[in-house]
Amino acid sequence: MRNVVLIIEYEGTNYVGWQTQPNGIAVQECIEKALKRITGEDIRINGSGRTDSGVHAIGQVANFHTQARMPADRYAFALNAHLPPDIRIRNSFETEHDFHARFSAKRKRYRYTILLSPHARALTRNTALHVHGRLDIESMEAVAKKIEGEHDFRAFMSQGTSMENTVRTVYESVWKRDGEYLHYEVEGSGFLYNMVRILVGTMLDIGKGILPPSAIEQALSTHQRSDAGATAPAHGLMLLEVTYMG
Amino acid sequence: MRNVVLIIEYEGTNYVGWQTQPNGIAVQECIEKALKRITGEDIRINGSGRTDSGVHAIGQVANFHTQARMPADRYAFALNAHLPPDIRIRNSFETEHDFHARFSAKRKRYRYTILLSPHARALTRNTALHVHGRLDIESMEAVAKKIEGEHDFRAFMSQGTSMENTVRTVYESVWKRDGEYLHYEVEGSGFLYNMVRILVGTMLDIGKGILPPSAIEQALSTHQRSDAGATAPAHGLMLLEVTYMG
Repeated sequence: MRNVVLIIEYEGTNYVGWQTQPNGIAVQECIEKALKRITGEDIRINGSGRTDSGVHAIGQVANFHTQARMPADRYAFALNAHLPPDIRIRNSFETEHDFHARFSAKRKRYRYTILLSPHARALTRNTALHVHGRLDIESMEAVAKKIEGEHDFRAFMSQGTSMENTVRTVYESVWKRDGEYLHYEVEGSGFLYNMVRILVGTMLDIGKGILPPSAIEQALSTHQRSDAGATAPAHGLMLLEVTYMG
Repeated sequence: MRNVVLIIEYEGTNYVGWQTQPNGIAVQECIEKALKRITGEDIRINGSGRTDSGVHAIGQVANFHTQARMPADRYAFALNAHLPPDIRIRNSFETEHDFHARFSAKRKRYRYTILLSPHARALTRNTALHVHGRLDIESMEAVAKKIEGEHDFRAFMSQGTSMENTVRTVYESVWKRDGEYLHYEVEGSGFLYNMVRILVGTMLDIGKGILPPSAIEQALSTHQRSDAGATAPAHGLMLLEVTYMG
């Protein structure tokens, strides 16, 4: 049995998300169907984590076990020949038998992109949240720093999800400006369901003056979802990288 | 009569190009239909130039005359409410009566993007040409410099087009590297039909070793289309900016 790793890029616009679901086509499902055509096997792939409908990935990671003899580096070429163009395998390689894309992950890095402009844009319509109006970016930059460190992020998790351990470590939390675009980049040991989108939504509420700058620290101490802000829309979010070293 | 200028961004993937044509929907046509709904007038807009089907623009410029009393800066908001999301008006403003987006243009700037990688990518599938294989980038960078200056570019014009004066001045012609992406940026006094795509196609043929590095100078001196290389595909091309000053 080979254990094969895939590095995957996708535009999430046309999918119900990473994980296979009854109500539409998932990225995982597309890759599993392509693997069936290539190997003849019913293969279940392990993603590093789910992404919601509309969320994109440049560096999603998945692994699967197969008895097929094809060299691991050929899977990227073979899969890309069977996948739609908005899902591309960037690389494929063999790894140790016990590697698991989800359980072996040490860190994840996400980016959330905002277009701050009177008018939306054509070329980034599916990958950036358009915000029109004044934003206090200095306040957003200051509160982003408060997110770094080890915290109980229970307040930044969508309600209805159950998760025993809601403590996570955020290694970097920073806003980067690029003309009319604002990119929030965050790297952490892991993220609760919708955590990045709620962090961004809360910082946007602070930037708009809907919430005070203290809202982030308040929610980190009360652990109450109601003390955090809105959940930012999915389409601004991108999974950049999953790290397995260290 | 007001003379109103529009700055336009579009993804050309779903259009037959800028100019209205019988065989599909054009960007120009979409904007003219939206203007009809806003003003009630049958308005013909002047674009700075045509772009082919699949070619994109960040900074296309157009102008039109209208008797409508709406302040010029409101057209961007009003048009965006009626346009599809892959066409966006970035700005609108009033200008002098004799301004013409095509005839008043002094310079244009284009970018052509190549993804140099074993595998295509999902997020740039419509905006970058995927090239797999070795490219002699140093040679391409060197020959790009030969394009700068005043030349008769007749060899770099699609056959079947008639154009009396085929002399143009290229102010800048340069390749820029950004990881796996290669961007060719070119600014000139104007461009013949398909000129940027034939310049890129010729440089790609040089980079692949299909043509010698002397091919650019050869074609610039013989003026023979057959001495230049292939026409690069449309979807890598983007109109960045049109300049009217100086």
